[in-house]
Amino acid sequence: MKIYNGYSRLPRNYALMTDEYEFTMANGYLLCGKQDQEAVFDVFFRTIPNGGGYAVMAGLDKVIPFIQGLRFGQQELDYFKRKGYGAEFIDYMKDFRFTGDIYAIPDGTPVFPNDPLITVKAPLIQAQIVETALLSMINGAMEHATGARRIIEATPPGVTVMEFGARRADGCEAAVDASIYGIMAGCVGTSNDLAADMLNMKGMGTQAHSWIESYPTEYEAFLAYAKAYPDNCLLLVDTFDTLKSGIPNAIRVAKEYLEPNGYRLKGIRIDSGDLAWLSSQVRQMFDEAGLNDAIICLSNALNAESIESLVHQGAKFDTLGVGDNISKPAGRMGCVYKEVALMEDGKWVPKIKLTNNVSKTTNPGFKKIYRAFDRETGFALADVITGRDEVIEGDRLTVVDPANYLRRSSIRNFDLEELQKPIFIKGELVYDDPEILEKQAYCNQQMARLYPAVKRIENPREYYVDCTEEYVNFKNQLILDTQKSILEL
Amino acid sequence: MKIYNGYSRLPRNYALMTDEYEFTMANGYLLCGKQDQEAVFDVFFRTIPNGGGYAVMAGLDKVIPFIQGLRFGQQELDYFKRKGYGAEFIDYMKDFRFTGDIYAIPDGTPVFPNDPLITVKAPLIQAQIVETALLSMINGAMEHATGARRIIEATPPGVTVMEFGARRADGCEAAVDASIYGIMAGCVGTSNDLAADMLNMKGMGTQAHSWIESYPTEYEAFLAYAKAYPDNCLLLVDTFDTLKSGIPNAIRVAKEYLEPNGYRLKGIRIDSGDLAWLSSQVRQMFDEAGLNDAIICLSNALNAESIESLVHQGAKFDTLGVGDNISKPAGRMGCVYKEVALMEDGKWVPKIKLTNNVSKTTNPGFKKIYRAFDRETGFALADVITGRDEVIEGDRLTVVDPANYLRRSSIRNFDLEELQKPIFIKGELVYDDPEILEKQAYCNQQMARLYPAVKRIENPREYYVDCTEEYVNFKNQLILDTQKSILEL
Repeated sequence: MKIYNGYSRLPRNYALMTDEYEFTMANGYLLCGKQDQEAVFDVFFRTIPNGGGYAVMAGLDKVIPFIQGLRFGQQELDYFKRKGYGAEFIDYMKDFRFTGDIYAIPDGTPVFPNDPLITVKAPLIQAQIVETALLSMINGAMEHATGARRIIEATPPGVTVMEFGARRADGCEAAVDASIYGIMAGCVGTSNDLAADMLNMKGMGTQAHSWIESYPTEYEAFLAYAKAYPDNCLLLVDTFDTLKSGIPNAIRVAKEYLEPNGYRLKGIRIDSGDLAWLSSQVRQMFDEAGLNDAIICLSNALNAESIESLVHQGAKFDTLGVGDNISKPAGRMGCVYKEVALMEDGKWVPKIKLTNNVSKTTNPGFKKIYRAFDRETGFALADVITGRDEVIEGDRLTVVDPANYLRRSSIRNFDLEELQKPIFIKGELVYDDPEILEKQAYCNQQMARLYPAVKRIENPREYYVDCTEEYVNFKNQLILDTQKSILEL
Repeated sequence: MKIYNGYSRLPRNYALMTDEYEFTMANGYLLCGKQDQEAVFDVFFRTIPNGGGYAVMAGLDKVIPFIQGLRFGQQELDYFKRKGYGAEFIDYMKDFRFTGDIYAIPDGTPVFPNDPLITVKAPLIQAQIVETALLSMINGAMEHATGARRIIEATPPGVTVMEFGARRADGCEAAVDASIYGIMAGCVGTSNDLAADMLNMKGMGTQAHSWIESYPTEYEAFLAYAKAYPDNCLLLVDTFDTLKSGIPNAIRVAKEYLEPNGYRLKGIRIDSGDLAWLSSQVRQMFDEAGLNDAIICLSNALNAESIESLVHQGAKFDTLGVGDNISKPAGRMGCVYKEVALMEDGKWVPKIKLTNNVSKTTNPGFKKIYRAFDRETGFALADVITGRDEVIEGDRLTVVDPANYLRRSSIRNFDLEELQKPIFIKGELVYDDPEILEKQAYCNQQMARLYPAVKRIENPREYYVDCTEEYVNFKNQLILDTQKSILEL
């Protein structure tokens, strides 16, 4: 049996991190003798946050140790007693182990609405109990990763992005997550030392306005810093006036202290004001002063749109510090967890939740999800949902919108890659979750396989998660049958 | 010495949950011999999220154990070594204890832009090192509390609100926080069992769509649930069709199983569709069936606006389940931590960060903050900032906008209450942080002291955080002096 040996991701036992109705139902299933009946649930989302063209899968590094360590100890059993659950339930929970299968799309993969991100196949009670923690882990993680990747895609080649968002995160654990998923999605590092330590990296950062204010003058503050860090002297120049005070003082420290002692000014950070104009002025002042190698770091509520605007305006910068748009991006992930199949008398019976909004109707059944890549260009053409046992053959495939069988297209000359990997089989971990920098490289590589139009910030092209004709016919028949039984009521 | 004996709020050692620049500066201060110089920092925010009229203070239950337990153990010291810090710094950090004073506005208090929520007076290094964790704790906590209170204010009297947001939270710790601060701000309970256990409460909840889908028919699903929970039978009725299927089946279970066995139907939950119309139809169907005592619970992305709209449309409901608008409200808190004074040669020297935007200029100096209440009506009139040693006398007071001394008004016949309480003095905890339900009662009571116009959801009346004439004169002079020194550059 594999033991998850990644960095410690779960600071406490989250077995009770469950909406009470999961336990209420678990107890109910137990009372009805349904505890061994197997079910299949899918995790998926319906819309991409922030009007973007893709989301980035993340959070398996938390889901894996959660599932592997899921136990109800004395504290949890005492709670069940206090809640009034009976002895049968408490006995059952005492010996609880997750014994099912979990398939998932690996962390760092760009994903799209209705992709089954995670599929849980397990006895009904088990599948139910993991829902809440799993959704909260995945929703949070994907917001950070998706928010961060949006920033990375907006940033010009050669410019690095540092994750600076801890102070605006939703508490300390979310801050750690923002750092980890930010780096996974392409950030070069983080200012958060706890996350850096967990990743065996080093926290990044320079100085705050309070350093400057703690000296009688800005020059004295810069000089003290240069003496403390002569080989890594990056100065914050906007406390009083960037161009009239900050940059002249930075140049003076470079010329009067650093260079005579054999050092170069590392660079400066601007954290307020008109970053586009200030940075181009600073570049010019530095170049005129012979400080061509001094780097410019920009920060201050940067997001994908403002970074694109900086580039458009000719701003000069070498690195960006991005905070709340990674630790708390505006766009919320709305991953849900829906029952799609139930084992009845040895057969999988597909399950569907109907709504008046056809596009919100779930994709029923135990499925597979493929990504089709163009054999010539290497770009992803579409994702394709099939039944679990369906085989796709031939070099041409008709793919159909599972919510509207009239929208269909034909793809040819493609390679299919199955997106989900087995993570747990019969409760045993069978997956080697990659190290953070492997995930980062994988994310970069998978993002490069998307058409640029899918990745653009504004009005991205829609990437389709389609299905086969066989699957849409099965789904439509199930909808019609289910509607019929309701209409007859 | 007091030991914080609240529920366990910190699942791990967050000493390294610090932006690296805090340690970089700490080491720099140490190298410059500035480690014992005392400083004062204020935590405050500039705008209220979501266009609301107030925010709700929260998070001291995490800040207190963080400060009290702040130690750098072997793991942290090894990290500093790996980062390349010298022996002097590592020695200093090994013996690190917070020895300063912390003053804060209690959890549950409605607060406003520029109120100093927390004031830290401590040696510069210490004050710097606590910044990041403290901001992340407070920002996250206040978003949940403020989001929850917005919901509570929109909810009619007699209707209870349950916090259901775990699955949309930013990971499991944020989910626990959402529950705790949701209850603090007025929710009657939470679905999250981990939070409920920590609070010595009981998690709340009923059943999911998957329960219904796990039986051949909705009626069989309802009947099985009624048998398992005859005295607490609350059924989810929207899986197929609320009015044609869900409610008739619920009534049938009430009449055919519950009532013959001496039980009553507890009620139903509707989680989709036109909640206003459906709920009023359901009420009528129930009343006609003699189920006048069956309650109606509504859920599905409810927020303050949609709850007000439900009331306006004549929806019928007894309880609400609110999810992401408590666990992840749209509005972000932007609390910042700014140096406002530094001890130089035995005297407090006020510190100010100028910006072109005068309203973003910090309020300098070691201050006090009062809330003025009308002696007759009991309503809060304004908050008033003063210098630390300033004494307010007389029954009439001119209060001034600290960002614009031309906006001034006069208040009379008022009582002043100082908002900040001492939390730590010389590193010792001196504050009894109240239990969660005491905080809830306090929050209700303080909210009742605000004018209704300040609390309305749409276009609330602005509540002013003003200052005395003495304070604004001091601040303006400091701005002019600082500008002069820059203009002369």
